[in-house]
This record gives sequence, structure tokens and C-alpha cells, in this order.
Amino acid sequence: MSEYIEHDKNGVSVGLVEKQFYTFAHPPNEMILENGTKLGPITLAYETYGTLNPRRDNAILILHALSGDSHVAGYYSNDDSKPGWWDIMVGPGKGIDTNKYFVVCSNILGSCMGSTGPCTINPETVLPYALDFPMVTIGDMVRAQMALMDYLEIDKILAVIGGSIGGMQVLEWCVKYPQKVVSAIPLASTTRHSALAIAFNEVARQAIMADPNWNNGNYYSGDKPDLGLAVARMIGHITYLSDESMRRKFGRRLQTRSNFSFNFDADFQVESYLRYQGTKFVERFDANSFLYITKAADYYDLEYQYGDGSAVKAFSKVKAKFLVVSFTSDWLYPTYQSKAMVQAMKKNGLDVSFCEIEAAWGHDAFLLPSERLSALIKGFLGRVHGEIQP
Amino acid sequence: MSEYIEHDKNGVSVGLVEKQFYTFAHPPNEMILENGTKLGPITLAYETYGTLNPRRDNAILILHALSGDSHVAGYYSNDDSKPGWWDIMVGPGKGIDTNKYFVVCSNILGSCMGSTGPCTINPETVLPYALDFPMVTIGDMVRAQMALMDYLEIDKILAVIGGSIGGMQVLEWCVKYPQKVVSAIPLASTTRHSALAIAFNEVARQAIMADPNWNNGNYYSGDKPDLGLAVARMIGHITYLSDESMRRKFGRRLQTRSNFSFNFDADFQVESYLRYQGTKFVERFDANSFLYITKAADYYDLEYQYGDGSAVKAFSKVKAKFLVVSFTSDWLYPTYQSKAMVQAMKKNGLDVSFCEIEAAWGHDAFLLPSERLSALIKGFLGRVHGEIQP
Repeated sequence: MSEYIEHDKNGVSVGLVEKQFYTFAHPPNEMILENGTKLGPITLAYETYGTLNPRRDNAILILHALSGDSHVAGYYSNDDSKPGWWDIMVGPGKGIDTNKYFVVCSNILGSCMGSTGPCTINPETVLPYALDFPMVTIGDMVRAQMALMDYLEIDKILAVIGGSIGGMQVLEWCVKYPQKVVSAIPLASTTRHSALAIAFNEVARQAIMADPNWNNGNYYSGDKPDLGLAVARMIGHITYLSDESMRRKFGRRLQTRSNFSFNFDADFQVESYLRYQGTKFVERFDANSFLYITKAADYYDLEYQYGDGSAVKAFSKVKAKFLVVSFTSDWLYPTYQSKAMVQAMKKNGLDVSFCEIEAAWGHDAFLLPSERLSALIKGFLGRVHGEIQP
Repeated sequence: MSEYIEHDKNGVSVGLVEKQFYTFAHPPNEMILENGTKLGPITLAYETYGTLNPRRDNAILILHALSGDSHVAGYYSNDDSKPGWWDIMVGPGKGIDTNKYFVVCSNILGSCMGSTGPCTINPETVLPYALDFPMVTIGDMVRAQMALMDYLEIDKILAVIGGSIGGMQVLEWCVKYPQKVVSAIPLASTTRHSALAIAFNEVARQAIMADPNWNNGNYYSGDKPDLGLAVARMIGHITYLSDESMRRKFGRRLQTRSNFSFNFDADFQVESYLRYQGTKFVERFDANSFLYITKAADYYDLEYQYGDGSAVKAFSKVKAKFLVVSFTSDWLYPTYQSKAMVQAMKKNGLDVSFCEIEAAWGHDAFLLPSERLSALIKGFLGRVHGEIQP
């Protein structure tokens, strides 16, 4: 997600929050993954905001995208320079109102932000898993989240909400646990990656694996594949923006120099922006996690897995009410993909609201301040919560 | 350009052709480049097809894109498995009819296909130039082509034709040498790169420069930065295609396996296609040339250089008649960019035909067989040639 998010400094925040951890699937009761292998113990890092009400019916589960984490809102300390990644949406009085709802966000399985992933110590070898980490799927991530919901004694989730790969998890929740999910908001998402999306992920993975420091995944005791991961991140960043947003944000504007360098320095602001994003990303993200999560996203295919290729069939057991949102300039998960899922939901008679938001900012738009999006989500949550009142 | 071009095997070919070389700008008469430095001697590799008529008014200059060469049509030997890169368009009776026209195509300055570039031996050091090669511009490439035209004693060029970066050279020809160019066909091109196009080029360059074998450009006596260059080429390939063409060509089809590998092998056909394209490219192209040519393309800015930011002013001295062609699914050089140049040409009262061709294949469409495109070019050339008859 973009580092250029302009946070609403005036907004009320949830304040100070703390990262928590839940560990389960202890051997010999490991989780059997979709690919047939076992994994355990499993730790999920998570954060909660707001209060679970006595009826336990106000829980909202937020599902993050590729490089996100459990820190969706608030600050860890008063010294933090910036809040969680969706602080513009989650907080008192905001689109996802923490005065009304109990919000949970957990770092996904396979990531490197506190949950078990390739950089976690493998108890069998007492070394990081690296490529011995099994290939986890979007389904596995959701099953791990289900274990966390059980632990938190949340039987029904008022809403599962997420964008991009988080949106895939939203859909997986609805299909895998139809009785558990009251409503769902997949944003800028898809039931399966297009060839174009797979292509970008594959080139990003190749950039990582081309870095000799990657060393077949074994770099935890030495130099990290920072250059490869930076290139991978730069590729991603281009796909999160749009032709229009890049024109507006950068155009052909040069850096401080008034003329070209006539060498391979960054002449244009867009070059320098990408280099900066790449460099900053390697400080906080693990290259192997990037490989695993992008591969899980590429594998995800709701139609194939649950509908023998038919989206209509895949949604046939789903109960959730949906708010599906796409963004006009998102060319990574274009609107036609959201429309296809909406059509399949409607053919099953599901309660679906769909909105395509006019936005120049490409795929990243779901993370950017939008009164329209906040109002949509707030209205939808209020309605579905009202409809389950006894 | 795509390696997946399906050549028309039944078409008549120009037959066997030979690569020729012209060397000029011998010291102390080196060429003064746009950045102020000197370069010489300069060699251009070129090929010709057809016959220059007695009036010397039937010459067509074809200008190639990033990875092209002088071998636009025909075969070097009877054993060649495939002909030149635009053999579908150039040949007897084809869109650019070698029975009627004398066609010249030269490898651009800075490339590695026979013309002087970073892999050429620097006479001063008797080593390859590497990064001592000066930063050449689109304008420098065109001035070198002008020297070749002088050598061939072609005073007026009936048509300059090229796509993508070749189209930039077409525009530069028209603006720099208005008296020399009777007509011009820029295909899938632009007067200046958008931030998006610069961004893709920059990430591709970063992928090359991240490869330790690149070694600041000094790899000619050792291992080449093949992995980095392959990633760069893969990035390029995605931008040459389109969402729709990738869906049609690959979709989510898997390789021979019937199920996922659950590792980082190429599972999807699109992954394997990209890996193949990357690997094949490094066999024929020089990483430093990739850096220089993409940078020259990023620098190119017709409005800025010739019009103080105004395209209308930039075209004010141009005399050529134009056929401008764009392709609906080309998102690298989208139609709006061609329309902008057409508008600027028209405001100068120029004779301009514009056609947006409906094509699913993205930027690569200009290289693919299209009866429409062939007929358009053939008709335009026939008209402009007819109009200069005495």
C-alpha cells in the first residue's frame, strides 16, 4: 500500500494500541494446509480496537493486503510519526466506527509482521523456515483467522472487510464459513488474478530471486536481497497507481536539477519516488514473505476451487450481505472483475450493493481518504448491524 | 518487440539481404552530441531493400524501436528460421512495397546490433565504452541517420516510418529536417513519455543495475548481468501486451502440470512465457544498450525541446504529411497521446490522417499482422508518392 497516504491529522484516533499474539496448532495438532502439509505451532499477531458488546454481535474483521500488518489504526506510542495503515477509516466516528464496533485485524499467515511466516524460527531446525516454509494459501490464511475468532469467542462476524488481497480473504471467509459472516466488504478486489496481475507478481518474484543475496531463500544470517526486493516493490508501486495519478503527481517534473543529468541518476521525480519506495520497503518487509504472499494471491481462484469454474456456483452457499466497491482507475483489479462477482452474487439472490467510485488514484484508491468510501462503509455497516438487532 | 509475431509464411519476401556498415565522424570531426560531448568515429549498421529510382524520390526510412535492428525484412541466409522483424509489412507487394520503394533501415546509435554503442570498442582505450559511452539522445540518433542519408545521396525521404521509440525518431526527423521529409508515419508513439512509461523504464533499469554482474557497466570481459536484463525484459513485455491480450493468450492456464507446484516454479503459462522471453532476450541484447536507449526515450520531449512546452509551436516548421496510427489497447502509448500530436499538427494546417486501430494486442499491435494497417500504410504511401510526381 502507498506510503504517500495523507492521513487526516484532525481525525480522532483510537489512540495507543498494542500488538497481541495468539499461538495455536501446537504439535501434534498442527494445521493441515491446503497443499497437504502440516504447519504448527502458528502464531498470529493481532490488534483490537473498540469493545465487544454483550451480545458479541459487533465484531468486524479487517483483512490486510500484501504488505500490511495488524496495525490498522492508532499509535504504538506517543512518539510514533504515523498511525496504522487505515487510520483514516478506522476510529471513533470514522467509516468503521470504533465507538460502535469491535475491530480485529490480524497479520496474515506467511507474513513477517509478527505472524508465522518464512522468517519465523522453524522449531524442528531452530533456524528460520526460509523456503522450508510450506506454501500457504488464501484459504489457509483464513482458517488461521478463524482460529483467532474462536479464541476471541466471536461466533458471528458482523463484517469482514478488506481490499486487494485482503478482499480475496473476504470472499474466502464468506464461502468457507457462510454461517459465520453476516456481511462482507471486498474493496478493489477479484475472485482470481488475471494473467496481467500474475505477470506483474511473477516479474517481481523473479527480481527477488535474481538477487544473489536471496540465496535460495537462505539469507537470514547474511546480507538480504535488498536490491531485488526493492525492484519488486517498485514494480508493485507502478501497478498501484494509474496513468492519470502518475501524470498528476509527477508528470515529467525533474528533481532539483534544472536539466538532465545525462547519466543514470534519477532525473525525473517519478524515478526518485520509485527508488525511495523500494529502499524504504526493504527496511520493513521480508523478501521470502513477498514471494509466499504473492504466490498465494496468484493461486487464489474462487471459481475453480468452490464452483468447478463457475462463480455463480461458488457463491451458492454464501449467506453474507455484500458491499462490493471498485475504483475507476484501478487497472490491476479492474471494475469488470468486481462486476463479475456482483453478478454471480445476484444470481444467487444475495443482498448486494455495488459501487464503482470515480477515482484517479488507481488500485491504491481504496487506502486513500475518500468521504464517499467512508460514508458508504458507515452506511452499510449501520444497516446490517440494525438488521440483526433482536 | 514481441517474439511471438506470427509471420505470414506465404508472403513474398525480399529474399536474401546483407547487413552493411557506414562509418563517419572520424576524429577530429566527431559528432557533437546534444549533451555537448563528442563521439566518433560512428558506425551505423543498415540494410536496404528495393531500388532507388532515377529521380531518387522513392526512399523510405524505417526507424526501429528499443530492441530492433537494421534487419527489417528478408533473410540473411537460406538457413534462417525467421525473417526480419517487420517482414509482414516490408516486401514485394506488401504495405511497404519493395517493388516500388527503396527501403532503408539502420540500427540506432547506442544499440548493440552493429551500430556504435556502449559495447563498441572505444578507440581511446581499446576497451568497450561501457558507461564511458556518452548519453545519446533521440536527436543524436536522428542526426546519425541523416549522415547515412547523405552518404546514400538521398536528398528527400518519401516517408519516415516507425513505431514506439521508432515513432519518436519519426517525429524528430520531421521537426529537425523539415525540408528533407515528404511524409511521416509515427505508429503507437508519443511526443514524450508519460510518468507511467518513465516509471516502467526506470524499474527495468534498476533491475539491470541491481545485478552485481552489471558491475557499473563493466561486464564485457566477465559474466553478464543476464538475470537483471531478463527481469528488465519481462517488465517490458508486460507493457507491450494488454489485459485483454494476456487473458486471451494465457488466461489462468497452467503449464503441463494439472495442479499447482506449491513452490516457486512457473505454474501459469504466462509465467513461463515471461521467463522464456527474458532468457531469450539476454542472448541477443546488451544490458548497457538497454539502459542508454530507454534513457534516451525517457528524455525525449518534443514539446519542451522545440516548442517551449507547446506541441503546436514544436510542429510549426514541419512540412511533412502525416499518417498517425494508435491502437485501442495500447496503454503504454495510449491513443490520447497520438490524438494530442494530431491536434497540434492540425493547428499548424498540416496534412494529417489519423487512425485508431481496434486491436486487443496492446502496444505490440503495431508489429503484428494487420490487413488494416498494411492497407492504410500502402494507401498513404501511394498518395504521397503520387503527389510529388512532376
